[in-house]
Amino acid sequence: MAKNLLAKGYALTVYNRSSKPLAWFREQGVEVASSPAEGAKEADVIVTMLSDDAAVDAVLGGEDEGCLATVRPGTLVIDSSTVSPELVRALSRKFAARGAIMLDAPVTGSAPQARDGILTFMVGGPEEGFLRARPLFLAMGRNALHVGPSGAGSTVKLANNTMAALNMLAVAEGLSIVQRSGLDPEQFLDVIAGGGANNGMAVSKREKLLTGRFPPDFAARLMVKDLRLATNLSWELGVPLPGLALVASLYQMACQMGEGDSDVAGLLKIYGKLSGSGTGEA
Amino acid sequence: MAKNLLAKGYALTVYNRSSKPLAWFREQGVEVASSPAEGAKEADVIVTMLSDDAAVDAVLGGEDEGCLATVRPGTLVIDSSTVSPELVRALSRKFAARGAIMLDAPVTGSAPQARDGILTFMVGGPEEGFLRARPLFLAMGRNALHVGPSGAGSTVKLANNTMAALNMLAVAEGLSIVQRSGLDPEQFLDVIAGGGANNGMAVSKREKLLTGRFPPDFAARLMVKDLRLATNLSWELGVPLPGLALVASLYQMACQMGEGDSDVAGLLKIYGKLSGSGTGEA
Repeated sequence: MAKNLLAKGYALTVYNRSSKPLAWFREQGVEVASSPAEGAKEADVIVTMLSDDAAVDAVLGGEDEGCLATVRPGTLVIDSSTVSPELVRALSRKFAARGAIMLDAPVTGSAPQARDGILTFMVGGPEEGFLRARPLFLAMGRNALHVGPSGAGSTVKLANNTMAALNMLAVAEGLSIVQRSGLDPEQFLDVIAGGGANNGMAVSKREKLLTGRFPPDFAARLMVKDLRLATNLSWELGVPLPGLALVASLYQMACQMGEGDSDVAGLLKIYGKLSGSGTGEA
Repeated sequence: MAKNLLAKGYALTVYNRSSKPLAWFREQGVEVASSPAEGAKEADVIVTMLSDDAAVDAVLGGEDEGCLATVRPGTLVIDSSTVSPELVRALSRKFAARGAIMLDAPVTGSAPQARDGILTFMVGGPEEGFLRARPLFLAMGRNALHVGPSGAGSTVKLANNTMAALNMLAVAEGLSIVQRSGLDPEQFLDVIAGGGANNGMAVSKREKLLTGRFPPDFAARLMVKDLRLATNLSWELGVPLPGLALVASLYQMACQMGEGDSDVAGLLKIYGKLSGSGTGEA
């Protein structure tokens, strides 16, 4: 995302909690901040992409080293992490008290879409901030949708990932029936294409599913984190989501089985030996 | 399906367990048989489309009145019902003993696709039978795939419907999060389009989901029947399918709540009041 901003001519100061990804930017002469607070000092716009609530709270809201400590009035804060709507709303209020506008702007798409600049941003927060941020979204992605007030972007992202996880469950179970019956999984994916049984995971994970190799574009352990956030949200909303409860448990099982760093499509592995037919008694 | 065959110039004799759908055919001068056995007597090809295992077993395999009683050697028997692979294989053996070839050829698509002649047939049985049947499939649909030996068509269909049901579960839970959060479900369906969260039910049931009206293209009670067959198959194969177990229970609950004759998209109704936000305490 930073590389795409750079390529479009934006002047950047970068920061990362681990230093390894910073080397490339140093080589390009990009300024590297020693802390989020230092990076925020002169910034017109702050963009964050981090792994979880704790990281976002520390980098944006940390009292000494966080961006909040030095943010200037009028600064636009864009968090593209997938975090709880609750955290987003709390941070948003803190930035607003400093005269800054915060947007929650998580993305659909994972590493390959970020690299290719074809992410879609789901944006929550004030309309004014969304309009200011739009050129940046379109420098990092191909689409940005204003979905509601602060927290709405996160909410839509959690709903999106709940569906993605359940789509993956659908694929895993459909393929399990077919493979255990000794039929051709590739032909099966062709048969379902275009109908009510098809889904975005069957399409985007096709090669991984058919080869049984799961290099991570989106790691199972990150899906577990998102499903936990979605579960918390479902309790706050008071809406029973039994599918979410099940698929969250199954992803936890996949992680316990050592698939945490596999792609989310590795959920297939908990269904056991998948080639050929069998009685399942083994 | 019969109307499409007629329109393509095939000479038909028709039979239906209830007489109402036969009136139209009588008016067109189409011969109406008084029993499956009578209809099968002179037939080169027998095509059946029935609601469940009991109906297929009676109409095709019934000892006195069933097609098996009068079928001629060389006759091609095509059953497009969604039934258990086990029943298909048993009937197939009985027809083979009479010199007839039976294919299991269930379809993807429901009433609208049948009417428009755009069904896809998933065909199990001998290659020879598949090749003979292909022109008929293409008169009733737009695609026919030979997926394996006897029972393979049914197996693929049950895997397909397991996925379709789980896709519907995904849609219902994603929409529940969004609607209970007070956000726009229509925009949500636009946001997810094209990504890993999208699926065939979100697309094909869009209008039903957004209006909350569920006139049946594929009734929930028929989905329950199919999920029961898929569950039986999963036990025969020895493959644990927790998603299937859950979604089968949820569809049973929907039927208990009076949604059995609603479209499968009516699963959404078991998630409670869906417009606006709420604490869910009510």
